[in-house]
Amino acid sequence: MAQLIADRRDIDFVLFEQLDSEALTKEEKYKEFNRKTFDLIINEARNFALKELLPINAEGDRIGVTLEDGVVKVPPCYHRAHKLYLEGEWTSLSEPVELGGQGLPPNVARAASEYLVGGNYCCVNYANFGHGTGKMVQLFGTPEQKKLFVKNLYTAKWAGGMLLTEPEAGSDVGALTTEAVKNDDGTYAISGTKIFITNGEHDLCDNIISPVLARVKGAPEGTKGISIFLVPKYWVNPDGSLGDRNDIVCTGIEEKMGIHGSATCTMTLGGKGQCRGILLGQENQGMKIMFHMMNEARLGVGFQAFTHASVSYNYALNYARERMQGKDLTAGKDSPSVPIIRHPDVRRMLLWMKAHVDGMRSFIYYTETLIAKVALAKTDEERLRYQGLLDLFTPLIKAYCAQRGFTVCVQAMQVYGGYGYCKEYPIEQQLRDCKIASIYEGTDGIQAMDLLARKIVMDGGKSLGNFLQMVQDTAAKAKTVEALAACAPNLEKAAQRLGQVADGLGKTIMSPDLKKAFAHAFPYLESMGDVIMGWMLMWRANVASEKLAKGAKGKDEVFYRGQVKTAEFFMQTVLPCTLGQMESIAAMSNAAVEMDEACFGS
Amino acid sequence: MAQLIADRRDIDFVLFEQLDSEALTKEEKYKEFNRKTFDLIINEARNFALKELLPINAEGDRIGVTLEDGVVKVPPCYHRAHKLYLEGEWTSLSEPVELGGQGLPPNVARAASEYLVGGNYCCVNYANFGHGTGKMVQLFGTPEQKKLFVKNLYTAKWAGGMLLTEPEAGSDVGALTTEAVKNDDGTYAISGTKIFITNGEHDLCDNIISPVLARVKGAPEGTKGISIFLVPKYWVNPDGSLGDRNDIVCTGIEEKMGIHGSATCTMTLGGKGQCRGILLGQENQGMKIMFHMMNEARLGVGFQAFTHASVSYNYALNYARERMQGKDLTAGKDSPSVPIIRHPDVRRMLLWMKAHVDGMRSFIYYTETLIAKVALAKTDEERLRYQGLLDLFTPLIKAYCAQRGFTVCVQAMQVYGGYGYCKEYPIEQQLRDCKIASIYEGTDGIQAMDLLARKIVMDGGKSLGNFLQMVQDTAAKAKTVEALAACAPNLEKAAQRLGQVADGLGKTIMSPDLKKAFAHAFPYLESMGDVIMGWMLMWRANVASEKLAKGAKGKDEVFYRGQVKTAEFFMQTVLPCTLGQMESIAAMSNAAVEMDEACFGS
Repeated sequence: MAQLIADRRDIDFVLFEQLDSEALTKEEKYKEFNRKTFDLIINEARNFALKELLPINAEGDRIGVTLEDGVVKVPPCYHRAHKLYLEGEWTSLSEPVELGGQGLPPNVARAASEYLVGGNYCCVNYANFGHGTGKMVQLFGTPEQKKLFVKNLYTAKWAGGMLLTEPEAGSDVGALTTEAVKNDDGTYAISGTKIFITNGEHDLCDNIISPVLARVKGAPEGTKGISIFLVPKYWVNPDGSLGDRNDIVCTGIEEKMGIHGSATCTMTLGGKGQCRGILLGQENQGMKIMFHMMNEARLGVGFQAFTHASVSYNYALNYARERMQGKDLTAGKDSPSVPIIRHPDVRRMLLWMKAHVDGMRSFIYYTETLIAKVALAKTDEERLRYQGLLDLFTPLIKAYCAQRGFTVCVQAMQVYGGYGYCKEYPIEQQLRDCKIASIYEGTDGIQAMDLLARKIVMDGGKSLGNFLQMVQDTAAKAKTVEALAACAPNLEKAAQRLGQVADGLGKTIMSPDLKKAFAHAFPYLESMGDVIMGWMLMWRANVASEKLAKGAKGKDEVFYRGQVKTAEFFMQTVLPCTLGQMESIAAMSNAAVEMDEACFGS
Repeated sequence: MAQLIADRRDIDFVLFEQLDSEALTKEEKYKEFNRKTFDLIINEARNFALKELLPINAEGDRIGVTLEDGVVKVPPCYHRAHKLYLEGEWTSLSEPVELGGQGLPPNVARAASEYLVGGNYCCVNYANFGHGTGKMVQLFGTPEQKKLFVKNLYTAKWAGGMLLTEPEAGSDVGALTTEAVKNDDGTYAISGTKIFITNGEHDLCDNIISPVLARVKGAPEGTKGISIFLVPKYWVNPDGSLGDRNDIVCTGIEEKMGIHGSATCTMTLGGKGQCRGILLGQENQGMKIMFHMMNEARLGVGFQAFTHASVSYNYALNYARERMQGKDLTAGKDSPSVPIIRHPDVRRMLLWMKAHVDGMRSFIYYTETLIAKVALAKTDEERLRYQGLLDLFTPLIKAYCAQRGFTVCVQAMQVYGGYGYCKEYPIEQQLRDCKIASIYEGTDGIQAMDLLARKIVMDGGKSLGNFLQMVQDTAAKAKTVEALAACAPNLEKAAQRLGQVADGLGKTIMSPDLKKAFAHAFPYLESMGDVIMGWMLMWRANVASEKLAKGAKGKDEVFYRGQVKTAEFFMQTVLPCTLGQMESIAAMSNAAVEMDEACFGS
């Protein structure tokens, strides 16, 4: 039977064979750790997830969240798990110990989180959600604000939030109308309504600190006139004790397709004219500050989608190995029934899923190493290189993992057949829960615009070039490996074409025809994501081939052979489709832009 | 505002401009009709759907189905609509009047059904579901059976069903264990358990006649030993009156991701040893007979998915025209907000959706004309040609429309953003309801195997050749049209490649390497579906171009221009991806087949 949630062997492979995360323990910052302590923490996370989180995942979905008189109740079964989660100090794994974290390297933290988030995303998100708020205070707050808020948010003693969206300001944040007026005591009176607020209100914490985007009366229109405020549910006194209930109230929760355990709140601020907020940073700096949180959240959402995919793949693999149905296609009619993993079409789906789950895991962990490398960089040049790659990859992690993660869930449902559609089995929840990842924290389309208009042109294309060079290096190495030589040129070709297509798009967005380029932005994001998957899978296969050449045995040998075969499958089967998609982009059809609005339908 | 459910202008275009359905009224069989009566019936269907069916679609989803002591209750709001549906005689539109139908040509019937099924699939399916059972009796029953059952099933006075699946016999029907033993009176005693039985039991009809697949004691194993029986809920006396309650009982219903209004039943037959059934046809002919119903059901399931797509597209189009968000990309920062249909990425999604909805509508209506043409054929050659195309297209209608229909729903959710994920808006239900179409009546994988192993090789590839020739004829015509000449070669190339790839696959399935071919069966089905979309859209554009050349004015001119632009978009943007997919198939990777089972994961 395959493992639940995530494949531990694969996690170890990425952390310690592909990425050499053990090397980090030579750095001063991580000197407390060694391979053994890393293993211990991941084991603990896994045990906790299997024992406490996964078993209540379906119940949380079934029970959902309730709202009565402004009080939001999470599924009752979450309370015990939440308490244990805080006790286990799982909330801010890569923050310093003195601030309530564990001081782990970010990629090792992600490995542990794979089990925690994969085990029960809705439940643990209540505890994890304060980190982003805390980070903004740590980076932009006054010493007093830091003292009052950071540790309490990192440890989830208090929850955090993210109050951006309004009914008329979704993707267009700059259209927001929530207003702030400075009070005599330096606080601000806030009034407005925010919608789609994940975990905006709930009964798991003593206090909730909501970061709120608002416009100070008289500030400029659009994004440049936006400020950010901390609005505590209970006012926080200078000594850290809790004071009056603030005038921020949940006035509605959404009924949704999925993530039923997660409270999606409408928050009314200043309904009684008594909502107070504390300015974070300076007036009109709100967007700049919020983007720190936003980028973290985007990486988190892509990661969420990936965990749904990993969970679904492992379930589907177990099912395909156990479900007996049909005969082997090359055996006689009187031969016995076989597990469905013997059928070519089921294998095609499983291998497609495995390729993407493996590829996304490597991509996510790799991107997390960039966060560590930015912090550890010894020169500006080094730092800029890593930061550039991190910025480039952020919209990819968000939108590509959301998109392919969802498709993995859909494939898993196909493997299960009719059972996959039934609530008695776990897949349909994974599929429903995963879908939100393409929508919140900026839709796929917003990520694609970010990639095209900012990320691939931001530094004159330098980061894109750095990335493509790494892909080519990996392909070149694969060409020297017998088992990979035949499929390596596909990766080479795809990376080359990706660069050419980016050139064309980059020129077009500088021209009056820029809309034409934006009509191909999301397909470009998809193609780039595919090339990243190809890169990651080939990198894995290069590593695995070395181990095989050195005479790996037993389960290791099986694992490494799987890596090589998965890479071969992806290069031969997926990349030709990607090349087709890049031809489609290169053709630069302007039809979608030219189509008269009336022509779309009567 | 765009229309709800379906675009009437487009329906008329397909029926009367693309397919010339009016010509059918010159046939003796359809001489009672004219364009005006066709219009009248479609209008009636639309009015009924908008007034009675669509308004209760969300309620049916929310309330769902209940089971208590073997009694299944549908959502109460269905009762009125069901009654009116029967009174309106909507159940068997293309059956003869004397059997309770309306005698309509099948494609005109589909046009009316677009509104009925699109308005509320779960509700009308209770009434439509008896047709398949009735058809089998009409084709294979004794004169007495016909007299007793056919009209009552066609008019939905009695409901029908489809009892195939068992816990250990899903895709592998031949593994079923339900047993039949002949009684002295010529009836059979049936015992067994069937699962996933759509509408197996409910409270909308006086009686339910369940066709049941079972094995007569001592019959051969596998599919060749299967017989089919009619098992009435209430025994039907020779005079047509209802007798004793039969021993067929609903013992469970499934909780599912979607189609909550549809009862998915576990049916226990002979739990008290008193289930009686009537043999239909001869013993061991069950599969042959059932396949008549199966093919009808497969066309119906593809049609269901298409209606979800059409409904979703129209909702998304309305939303995109009304939702104000963001500035026009080429206007200044101080310009006013615009409806999101102005944004290139939204246009890309909408045009992709429109292309597929339009293409699927043409494909489905066209396939229905084949049914009429088979019946009207004057020579064997003609009949074989049409039957061959019908057989070839059936798995495509089923699986391609299910697959792309679902993707349209997903795109519609992206257009809605966060609102799309909320139950307050209609899209998330469409998405959930649509997903089942890839699963029931044979999964996508089963359809792909049918296409590859039977349909493209069945007549030495003649039907595939006939189809490809029609595509080439359409492309050749487009080359003579100025607005289409530039994109027509893409269609030509895609059709040519599709034939080549089929040759390769056909040879491989005749070799010992046949599994390799099956690992590419579903991608081949997808590619073929894309080529069919290209064909249909180019055919539409050819017709529209002629009308434009003749000086079409006003709304017509707008509509025709939309056809040309949609074709241009599809040929330039989608077909290059399809060509990429065909390269992937042609590369014939054997990795999925070769992968050791253990390599999929530990």
